Amino acid sequence: MKITVAQINYHVGNFEANVDKMLNAVKEAKGAGSDIVCFSELATCAYPPRDFLEFEDFIIRSEQSIDRLAEAADGIAIVVGSPSRNPVIEGKDLYNSVYFLADKEVKFVQHKTLLPTYDVFDEYRYFEPASEWGVVEYKGKKIALTVCEDIWNIGNENPLYTICPLDEMIKLKPDFIINVSASPFTHVHSEERLHVCVENVKRYNIPLFYINHVGAQTELIFDGGSVIASPNGKIYEELPYFVEAIKHYELDEIMKGEQEILQSKDKIKDIHDAIVLGIKDYFGKLGFTKAILGLSGGIDSAVTAVLAARALGPENVRVLLMPSQFSSDHSVNDAVALAENLGIQYDIIPIKDMYDSYLEKLSPIFGDLPFNVTEENIQARVRGTLNMALSNKFGNILLNTSNKSEMAVGYGTLYGDLAGGISVIGDVYKTDVFRMAEYMNKDGVVIPINTITKPPSAELRPNQKDSDSLPDYDILDEILELYIEHHKGPKEIVAAGHDPALVKRILRMVNINEFKRYQTAPTLRVSSKAFGMGRRMPIVAKYLS
Amino acid sequence: MKITVAQINYHVGNFEANVDKMLNAVKEAKGAGSDIVCFSELATCAYPPRDFLEFEDFIIRSEQSIDRLAEAADGIAIVVGSPSRNPVIEGKDLYNSVYFLADKEVKFVQHKTLLPTYDVFDEYRYFEPASEWGVVEYKGKKIALTVCEDIWNIGNENPLYTICPLDEMIKLKPDFIINVSASPFTHVHSEERLHVCVENVKRYNIPLFYINHVGAQTELIFDGGSVIASPNGKIYEELPYFVEAIKHYELDEIMKGEQEILQSKDKIKDIHDAIVLGIKDYFGKLGFTKAILGLSGGIDSAVTAVLAARALGPENVRVLLMPSQFSSDHSVNDAVALAENLGIQYDIIPIKDMYDSYLEKLSPIFGDLPFNVTEENIQARVRGTLNMALSNKFGNILLNTSNKSEMAVGYGTLYGDLAGGISVIGDVYKTDVFRMAEYMNKDGVVIPINTITKPPSAELRPNQKDSDSLPDYDILDEILELYIEHHKGPKEIVAAGHDPALVKRILRMVNINEFKRYQTAPTLRVSSKAFGMGRRMPIVAKYLS
Repeated sequence: MKITVAQINYHVGNFEANVDKMLNAVKEAKGAGSDIVCFSELATCAYPPRDFLEFEDFIIRSEQSIDRLAEAADGIAIVVGSPSRNPVIEGKDLYNSVYFLADKEVKFVQHKTLLPTYDVFDEYRYFEPASEWGVVEYKGKKIALTVCEDIWNIGNENPLYTICPLDEMIKLKPDFIINVSASPFTHVHSEERLHVCVENVKRYNIPLFYINHVGAQTELIFDGGSVIASPNGKIYEELPYFVEAIKHYELDEIMKGEQEILQSKDKIKDIHDAIVLGIKDYFGKLGFTKAILGLSGGIDSAVTAVLAARALGPENVRVLLMPSQFSSDHSVNDAVALAENLGIQYDIIPIKDMYDSYLEKLSPIFGDLPFNVTEENIQARVRGTLNMALSNKFGNILLNTSNKSEMAVGYGTLYGDLAGGISVIGDVYKTDVFRMAEYMNKDGVVIPINTITKPPSAELRPNQKDSDSLPDYDILDEILELYIEHHKGPKEIVAAGHDPALVKRILRMVNINEFKRYQTAPTLRVSSKAFGMGRRMPIVAKYLS
Repeated sequence: MKITVAQINYHVGNFEANVDKMLNAVKEAKGAGSDIVCFSELATCAYPPRDFLEFEDFIIRSEQSIDRLAEAADGIAIVVGSPSRNPVIEGKDLYNSVYFLADKEVKFVQHKTLLPTYDVFDEYRYFEPASEWGVVEYKGKKIALTVCEDIWNIGNENPLYTICPLDEMIKLKPDFIINVSASPFTHVHSEERLHVCVENVKRYNIPLFYINHVGAQTELIFDGGSVIASPNGKIYEELPYFVEAIKHYELDEIMKGEQEILQSKDKIKDIHDAIVLGIKDYFGKLGFTKAILGLSGGIDSAVTAVLAARALGPENVRVLLMPSQFSSDHSVNDAVALAENLGIQYDIIPIKDMYDSYLEKLSPIFGDLPFNVTEENIQARVRGTLNMALSNKFGNILLNTSNKSEMAVGYGTLYGDLAGGISVIGDVYKTDVFRMAEYMNKDGVVIPINTITKPPSAELRPNQKDSDSLPDYDILDEILELYIEHHKGPKEIVAAGHDPALVKRILRMVNINEFKRYQTAPTLRVSSKAFGMGRRMPIVAKYLS
């Protein structure tokens, strides 16, 4: 038996385009003589459709997509994820299902049992869990069909669910497992995924075909990396990351378990590639081509500009250099050097006139009150307004250039440097931003060395440095990662070796700045806990604050 | 037996203050000779704690709060909601529980069964559902303890769950039901709540004590309106809305079912009162006292200013009047008249200088390109920057003044008039904003009549009117409500009598402006579907767009 794995980049709600892509893959699979072609979870409507699932019209269009695919299931079987209706009045109205299409009809439907409802996932918001499990027979083989999370409740210390659907299905003696997935990238996820696949084939002793989405949907980046695992507990093949791939497999070969093809893994490279895909799909799927950003001469906007140029092409990226009286000379020089290295269009607009005009109009109200964060923020907001003016006039989407460390502690001006349609490096800690800059320069200098080596500064008042009010970034990032990614409280972070007063101060800064993050652009997610939809904190609260 | 219902305003994460308030109520209940005093769902940590529940330290502090309360359960029993731990390794780590405290210890704990995971609710994100049900015996009475949603699966056409926990508990023959709740306000919710309470006492033929939160937690406004229902299917008493209340009840009297005290209901008055509480608690619980907003002379900012003055006191509200060359004469006059009627501080800053200074600096880049939305947005962003400058300098939180109709179709400038810490009327359609203005003027003119009667305009270009590009607001609001509140698709809205081309255009406007709403302040929620945490839409999608 020959099985085709189709790792495809879908588009939420774009049923026609999604089905067209799948029909092309069906054609290719038929050409290769495959018996079955497998797509991903909710491939008809793309993942995550979010509250569109609550619209009858959206479900009808999902069903029509299944009808279109069933028409093509002629001489080949198609395995595809799509919502289905719960006929029982009690419970949620939908299931998250995997369809088995053959002989131009729906032969079998298995519903998802384990509904991830944590971090960025909201599946119990929409779906009823399965309470019945079967296998489908096709060409003499019995196949266990599962959806994503259904295989993730084994091989971990603290299982989230009280059942494992495959424990039920295995009683029916399936020959192999197909898992249709939509499992987004994090820089630790590919290792976890391989581990889970291996745990499953070890436990059930049959091959596993795991077919993942690839491509970005707003903040979520699906990395692909589909997995074929052999019953001997080995990975037969791990498909490439961040690109579409269609590959055909002989079941007999996989049974032997002799091949082992793995992708190379490197945290900074993977984050880099994920973000490039994230930018590309954010623009492409919205129907935009051009980006704009403010280039300060600092490392965050430099790294963002390089990522944008790599995603969209340098001809589609333009930058504004907006020096103030507090900018150092090297800032403009470094920014110009970067723009020239990248071959992107730049304009220089000093902000002094606008800044002065605000101060003049405000002086009757402000009187003799001293310079403070107010005047710093006015500078940032003048820049935000200029960036948005070009965005509005020329149709370039503004990129937010804030890193995760400063997003965490609230170092950024709402409606100023926090403006932008998408946050590019808002899930990358400052220490990793430095690493990424080094990585970008590995084949020759793109980012000026001075941008990397000079002390970080917002340059919003004379001689300002980040280190005036923040600890070293390596310490800050450790504390932040313990709090944000690892959910450690103050006592646990102090026990890890950090100064109690500093820990208290940093956690307070994180908590009282929730209001800023609430109003910031969606952040391309590359870690296990990004700001945004996956981290839901109260704004009005009195806790560690 | 005497039972005290304590409808209290809690504060998320403020364990000490929450327990202090409860201990005062325990004292009062003891003084009244009560046998049991009842609080609300998750009263120790306040509802909704959101992802704070994922922190061990937060759970420990909830447990310590239960310990403090147990100490006071001496001569009186205490019923209170708080998280508890799931000792089983499989499944979620927590339960959402109701504790029965007596004789200085925990006598009984019942876990919540039905975990709302829709709209603004995320409970399955954190909690395992109960799978065992009991009753607690106290002073010769058997009591069924339930948590909020546990009583909501009956009396509706499309139940969300496959079980009703009270169907199990009733087998143990309880004498009455206590339901600890945290059920937020919408302008239709109080009727639904009374209906559900009546359905429960009709089905189980025993009294029900339903104890709700009161007070706002960021965007969610809990209205109180706790309910005591008699076994004859009558409401014995509905407690007041929007205020704390502690009342004592003789069980024997409730059994008779002769009393029936209901609160008066009026959509616009209730929304008004809800928003006033929402503003008051947003500021009070954040530790702020003063607000600022831009007053345009139009109805949205006028209504917002009145609400703010009523919530915070006129002495704590200041406004900026920021006319441009496109502002009509009456705009400033109307705004001044309102400020004087309210007795709030106002300053006038014409924006021309700042606006001109942007245009001058941009002219080398813009060349001869015609005036368009870019220049409109610059005006709005100059105003946003001025508002934020005063906010930063004086510590006044900026109020967002956008209404729900314009939020829906994207009529608003990101980082301009969409700026602000909290959206005050972002869940109120324009037609209801007019009604609220009339309601505010019912005892004498507060909002100038001209502000109410003149045609709505953003005044960002010469002779601009909302009606240039939008249908009449009564038609627009009907289409929006069908789409947003009632989840109707294009066909269903057209079938309701609307023009197909207009429906298509409006739904598209709603969908393509998701990116703006993503970056807007939390919105005080008064409808069954507000923008924000309860409405989760993809930004990058191709559906009705």
